[in-house]
Amino acid sequence: MIYLDYAAATPVSDKAIKAMLPYLNEEFFNPSSAYLPAVHVRHTYEKAKDDIAHVIGAKGADLVMTSGATESTNLAFSVVAGDPEVEILISAVEHPSVLENAKRAGNYQTIAVDENGRISLDDFKLKLSPRTQFVSICLVSSELGTIQPISDISRIIAEERQRRALAGEKTPLYLHTDASQGLGLLEVKINRLGADLITLNAAKVYGPKGIGALYVGHNVRLKPLTVGGGQEMGLRSGTENVASTIAFASAITEAEKHLNGERKRLQNLKQKFRHSLEDLPNIKFLGKDKTQLASFLPIILPGLDAERLIYALEDREVYVSTGAACAASKGIKSPALIAIGLGDDEIAGSLRITMGKYTDDKSIINASAIIHEVVNAELTRLSR
Amino acid sequence: MIYLDYAAATPVSDKAIKAMLPYLNEEFFNPSSAYLPAVHVRHTYEKAKDDIAHVIGAKGADLVMTSGATESTNLAFSVVAGDPEVEILISAVEHPSVLENAKRAGNYQTIAVDENGRISLDDFKLKLSPRTQFVSICLVSSELGTIQPISDISRIIAEERQRRALAGEKTPLYLHTDASQGLGLLEVKINRLGADLITLNAAKVYGPKGIGALYVGHNVRLKPLTVGGGQEMGLRSGTENVASTIAFASAITEAEKHLNGERKRLQNLKQKFRHSLEDLPNIKFLGKDKTQLASFLPIILPGLDAERLIYALEDREVYVSTGAACAASKGIKSPALIAIGLGDDEIAGSLRITMGKYTDDKSIINASAIIHEVVNAELTRLSR
Repeated sequence: MIYLDYAAATPVSDKAIKAMLPYLNEEFFNPSSAYLPAVHVRHTYEKAKDDIAHVIGAKGADLVMTSGATESTNLAFSVVAGDPEVEILISAVEHPSVLENAKRAGNYQTIAVDENGRISLDDFKLKLSPRTQFVSICLVSSELGTIQPISDISRIIAEERQRRALAGEKTPLYLHTDASQGLGLLEVKINRLGADLITLNAAKVYGPKGIGALYVGHNVRLKPLTVGGGQEMGLRSGTENVASTIAFASAITEAEKHLNGERKRLQNLKQKFRHSLEDLPNIKFLGKDKTQLASFLPIILPGLDAERLIYALEDREVYVSTGAACAASKGIKSPALIAIGLGDDEIAGSLRITMGKYTDDKSIINASAIIHEVVNAELTRLSR
Repeated sequence: MIYLDYAAATPVSDKAIKAMLPYLNEEFFNPSSAYLPAVHVRHTYEKAKDDIAHVIGAKGADLVMTSGATESTNLAFSVVAGDPEVEILISAVEHPSVLENAKRAGNYQTIAVDENGRISLDDFKLKLSPRTQFVSICLVSSELGTIQPISDISRIIAEERQRRALAGEKTPLYLHTDASQGLGLLEVKINRLGADLITLNAAKVYGPKGIGALYVGHNVRLKPLTVGGGQEMGLRSGTENVASTIAFASAITEAEKHLNGERKRLQNLKQKFRHSLEDLPNIKFLGKDKTQLASFLPIILPGLDAERLIYALEDREVYVSTGAACAASKGIKSPALIAIGLGDDEIAGSLRITMGKYTDDKSIINASAIIHEVVNAELTRLSR
C-alpha cells in the first residue's frame, strides 16, 4: 500500500498511542475530582496543554482544547457571532469550516489569490475597510499546500489597528489562521505569525482524530459554543479529553523535533517525484515550490477524470485524493481550484498527492510507475 | 485502591480499547476519502453508530456524534436557540450543562423535586404552559442517582401537544433528557422514554472521554453548533472521531449485554454497603431505593466536613466525591442538594459514593471499615 493522502489524515504515531493508553484505563479519573489521583490527571493534562502551546511559543493557558480543527475555527468565529453587520475577510482558498462560518456570519468578502493560490496582499489592502472586524486566512491551503504570508497580513492588520487607535475608532480587528495543515513541517510561532487566533489540529500531525485546540491571544473575547461545567476557563465546557490531549502533545512535540529534517526529506522526495511525473502528457504542477508545503504535490492531468484515476490507483493500492476530502466526497467543485483560475477540464483532472512520515524513495518510485501505467491505460481507453 | 466515584468517570473497558486501537493507526483513513480503505472506515463508523443507536432502540442515522454529554446537551438546546422568548422547563437537579443552557436561553423555570430528588409531576403540570417549548429533565440525577419519571413526563407532553394541535396552536414542544448517568444500568429506550432528544455519553459507561451522541427524533430541527465540512448530516461538522465512536459502541454494547445482572449485583452490594454504614452517627441516606440507580449511595454525615473526609479517605486510597465533580471543584453549593431541602450543615457533610464494574464485596467491606475509621477519627478530633 502506498498512502499519499497525508493531508486528509495521518496515522497516530506509536509514541502518541503509548502516551495516551494509560489515561484511558489506569489514569481514567475525572480531572475535576478532588482526590489526588484525579489531581495528578489534571496536572498531566495541563502539562500536555503546555507542551502543545510550547510548540507555537505560547502557554497552556492560551489554549482552549476542542474536538478538532472545525470546532476550533467555529470557536474563533464566535468573536464576531451574533452581529450580522460585522465585516469579515477570508481568502479564496479556505477550508469549508472557514467558508461556512463566514457565510453563516453573513457579511464577508473573499480575497483573491494568484495562480499558485497565494493571497494577493494588494487585494487584501483594498478590501480591508475601517469596518473589517475579522480576517481568517489559512496558514496553508489544504488543497494546494500554498503557504500564506500570514506575517505580512498581520503587519497590515497591525497598521490598520494603529490607524484606528489614532483616529479614535473603537472597531476591533482580529486575525484568525487555520494552521491545521503545516504543523510539523512549518514553524508555527505566535510571535512570527502575529495572529490573534490559531486553529490547531492533532489529526494532521500524527495525533488522534477528535482533538484540536484554539490559541487565543490576550484581549480576545470568545463566546463559548458550549456551556456547562465551565472547563477550559469557561470557554469550552465538558469533561476534558485527557487521553487525546496527551496524545496530541506527544505527536506535535515529536513532529516539532524532526521539523527541519522532515521538511528537507520531503522537499527532496517531492523534487524526485515531480521529476518522475514530468513526462506525463500535459501534466501541470500546481503551486510554486518556494511557497508550497514540502509534503504537497498537487497536479493536473487535463482531459482525464481524477475520480476514475483515483479508483484505478486504488486498485493498485495507491491512495491519493481529489481536492480536500470533505469537498470531494460531496462532489462539490473546489472553490480553491476555481479561484486559481483553473477551467472545468483542469479541475476535473486534478489530483492532490500529499506525502508524510512513511513516504520514502521506494514508495514514490513505485507510485510514479503505477501512476504512469494508470494514466497510460486511461489515455488508451479514451483514444479508442 | 478502592474507587467509588464511577459517576464521575469510568475506566475504558479492555474490549473498547482493543476495538479502537486499529482505527488509530492501521485504519486511520479519513472517512470522507473516496478510496476503498477509507470507505471501509466509513462503513465501520456507520456500523458503530448503528450499534450505539441499537441500544436505545434507534438507528445510526438518528444519532449525531459529539465530543461528549455537554456538547450533546448544548446541541439539544439549539432547537430553541436565538429566541429569548422561548419558555423552558428544567428540573431542580440538572447537571450544569442543562442549567447553564437554560440560563443562556434566558426564560426558564425550575420544576420542584421531592426530598428524594424526584421531580414533582404536579409542579410540572402547573408550570407547563401553552408557551412552553422545551423541557429538559435528566434521566438520572448525577448527584443523587434519582431516576426521573421520563415516560410520565413525555405522556403529559404528548397530551399538551394534542391539546395544542386540536386548538390549532403552532407552538412546538420538545422533551430532552440527559441520559449520561444510567446507561448500562437502566433500559434507555426511545419508545419507552418518549423523549425527542437524548444525550448519551461514552465516558460514564466504560467508553473514552471526548465522545458522546445526541439522539434526535424525527421532525426535530437542530441548529448546528459547528459548520464546515457538513459531516453528521450537516448537524456537526468536523472529521468524525472514528476510533472513539467504535470504542463507545463496544463499551455500550458490552454494558447493555450485562445490564440486568450488573444492576442486581450492584443493588445487592448497595444494600450490604448501606447496612454496614447504618451505625455511623446521624448518617442519612439520600434517595429512595426503588427510584435510585443501583450504583448510587449518596450519604449525609451532618456536622462533618465532606471535603476533609474526602482527603482523609484519599490517604487510605478510598476515592469518593462530594456532589458532582464539576460543581464540587468550583466550591459551588450544589443546587440539587438545596432543592431536596438539605440545610447548609447537611450539604457540607454530603458524600457521593458511586459503584461500578470493579466494585465487589471485598471493596465495600474494606471501604466501610475505612469510612468508619475516618469518621470516628474526625469525630474524636471535633470533640477535643
